[in-house]
Amino acid sequence: MAQKVKLSTIAEELGVSTATVSLALRDSPLVADITRDRIKTAARELGYIYNRRAASLRTSRSGIVGVCVHDVMNPFFGEILKYVEHELDRRRQTFILSNHYDDLSKQRAFVDTLLQLGADGLILSPAIGTPAEDIRLAEGNDLPTVLIARTIEGSGVCGFRGDDAFGMALAVDHLIAEGHREIAMVGGTPLTSTGRDRAAGWRSALRKAGIEPKPEWRIEGPRSRDTGFEAGQSFAQMNNRPSAVVCFSDMVALGFMYGLARSGLTPGVDVAVVGYDDIAEAKIAMPSLTTVSNGQAEVGHRAAGALLDRLAGNPASDETVLIKPVLKVRDSSHFAGELRKRIEA
Amino acid sequence: MAQKVKLSTIAEELGVSTATVSLALRDSPLVADITRDRIKTAARELGYIYNRRAASLRTSRSGIVGVCVHDVMNPFFGEILKYVEHELDRRRQTFILSNHYDDLSKQRAFVDTLLQLGADGLILSPAIGTPAEDIRLAEGNDLPTVLIARTIEGSGVCGFRGDDAFGMALAVDHLIAEGHREIAMVGGTPLTSTGRDRAAGWRSALRKAGIEPKPEWRIEGPRSRDTGFEAGQSFAQMNNRPSAVVCFSDMVALGFMYGLARSGLTPGVDVAVVGYDDIAEAKIAMPSLTTVSNGQAEVGHRAAGALLDRLAGNPASDETVLIKPVLKVRDSSHFAGELRKRIEA
Repeated sequence: MAQKVKLSTIAEELGVSTATVSLALRDSPLVADITRDRIKTAARELGYIYNRRAASLRTSRSGIVGVCVHDVMNPFFGEILKYVEHELDRRRQTFILSNHYDDLSKQRAFVDTLLQLGADGLILSPAIGTPAEDIRLAEGNDLPTVLIARTIEGSGVCGFRGDDAFGMALAVDHLIAEGHREIAMVGGTPLTSTGRDRAAGWRSALRKAGIEPKPEWRIEGPRSRDTGFEAGQSFAQMNNRPSAVVCFSDMVALGFMYGLARSGLTPGVDVAVVGYDDIAEAKIAMPSLTTVSNGQAEVGHRAAGALLDRLAGNPASDETVLIKPVLKVRDSSHFAGELRKRIEA
Repeated sequence: MAQKVKLSTIAEELGVSTATVSLALRDSPLVADITRDRIKTAARELGYIYNRRAASLRTSRSGIVGVCVHDVMNPFFGEILKYVEHELDRRRQTFILSNHYDDLSKQRAFVDTLLQLGADGLILSPAIGTPAEDIRLAEGNDLPTVLIARTIEGSGVCGFRGDDAFGMALAVDHLIAEGHREIAMVGGTPLTSTGRDRAAGWRSALRKAGIEPKPEWRIEGPRSRDTGFEAGQSFAQMNNRPSAVVCFSDMVALGFMYGLARSGLTPGVDVAVVGYDDIAEAKIAMPSLTTVSNGQAEVGHRAAGALLDRLAGNPASDETVLIKPVLKVRDSSHFAGELRKRIEA
C-alpha cells in the first residue's frame, strides 16, 4: 500500500488549512458544501482513511443511528424505513439496520452494540415483551430512542404509529355498508399493541352495528404471507364461513387470497377480503386489495425528524402520536357487494 | 443515573476476577459459555456499558461485519441475508445492514463508515458500475470483502452466485419441452452480470433448439414487482405475442402475472410464465410459479463462511463460485402444455 496519507497531505494538495480538512471530514457546518466535497474527493483519491473510532472518543457524536424492527423484509417496515433513510441521509447520519424477529435477546444485543459504538440514537419497533426498563436503560445511557409502529406503556419516549383501532373500524364499517353481517378477523396477536388495537377496533365496530362477533370469527396468529395462505385454505373449509374477512395486514391478506384461490374460491367474489397497511403490492394484486393506508411515509418522516430534533439538543417528548388511517376501497371487497346488489335488484 | 459501574463491581458481585469479566465481555473463547452469560446478565443488571470504541483501539477486531445489497426488501436478497445472519450470529459477529439502491455514492459512504468503525469485513452485492478499484481499496484498508449475487471482473476477491446462464437455459429448455417455440425474456439489464448472463442463457438455449430469438422478444428493464406488472399489461396488448416468457426474477414474474390477469388473461393458461430465484412466495402464488432455484441458502452460508475464514487468518481466495441452479416445475408453465396436449390428442 501507499505511504500513510495525513490531513496535511490533503491540505497541501488543495491549498487549504489542515483545520479545514479536519472539519470537512467531520461534516462540520462551518465548511461550505462545495469545499467539503472537494476535500472528500481528494481524501478518497489519495487513499486517506478517517479514523472515526479515534475521532468519536474526542467528540461526543458518532454520526450513527441504529434502526431495529421485526423484519425489514416485511414491506410495511421496508416502506417506513425508506422514509427514515431519506431523512437521515439528508442530515448525513449513517443508518445501521437490524432485525430482531421478536427475539428480545437479539434486540438487546443490537442495542448493546449501538451503546458500544457510541451511536447517536435508536429508532425501534420494539420486540414482543420489551420491558419499558430496556428503553429507559438505553435513554439513561445517552441513546435517545424513538418508537415506531408499536409502543410500550411507561417507556417515557415518543412514538409514532397508526390509530389501529380507528383504522380497523373503518374496514369493518365499509364491509357492513357492502352488505356483510358476518365478518371474521384473520391474523395478529394480542402480544403486540398493533394486534390488540386492531382486534379491539374490529370487535367494537361489529358491536356498534348490533352484531355480536362469534368466537370462531377471530382467527389469531397469522402475521406473514405464508401463514395467511394457510389460513385462507382452512377458512375455505370452514362450516358457516363468514362472507367477509378483515386481515391483520396486507401481507396476511395477500397470502389469504392465494389460499382461497388455491382452494377453488374466488377472492373478492366468494369472500370479501380487506387488508391493512396499503403496501405497494395492494394496488396491483388480483383482485386489487381493499386496505387501510397506515401512514408509512408519515411515520418514517416524523420518527426520523423527532430523533434528529433530539440530537439537535431539543427536549425529549414522551408523546405517542397516532397517525390517522385512511380506507382505500378496491376490488377485493367491492366485487361481492356489487354482485349481491345486482342479484337482489 | 446510578454511579459508574466498573469491571471490578461486576467481578465482586459474582466472585470472579476482573480479568474474567473483561474476557467474557469481549466474548473470549477462554471463558465458558455459562460463565460468560452470567457475567453479561450481571453487567446488564448493574447497568455496565462496555466501551467497544475504546476497546477496539486496543484490539484489532471490532466484531462488526457490514452487509450491503441493492435492496433488502427484495426477498431474494432478504433470503440470502437470513442465512448470512444465521452464520454471523453463531460466531457472535454483529451484522450491520445497508441498501445501496445501485447508487455508487451510497455504497461508498457505507464502505467509508465501515472503514471508520474498523469493521472486520464486508459482504457486498456490488452496485451497478462498481469499479474493481473500489473493492481493492477496501481490501487494501484491511476490510476483507466477499461478493454475493453479482461479481466484478478483476476485483481479486472471492464471490458466490448462481450459474445464471445455465439456470436460464434450464427454464427455456423446459418451455420448449412443453411445446413452446416463441419465448420472450422479460426484465433485467445488461449493466449487471446477472442480467447479462441470464439473457445469454435464454438466447443460447433458443438457438441450440434452432429458434432465432426476435428482437421484440427481449423486453429489458423490469427488476421489481411493480415494473413486472406494467410489463405484463403491455405484453397482453402485443401483436404476435409469444406463448411463453421467462422472467429475470420471481419478483418480476409475480408482478407480470398480476399484469396479465389485470388485462383479462389467465397466467399459466394464456401465457406460460417462468420466474427465477424460487423465493418463498413462488410456491403459494396463483398459479404456483415455475422457477429456477438460485441457491440463496448456499450463497448465504458460503459467503459468510468465506469471510469468517478470512477473519480466522486463512488466506484469501479470488475464486468466483458458481452455485448450480435447479428447475422447479409448477402450474404457471405446466397448465398450458397439459391443455395443449389434451386438445391435440
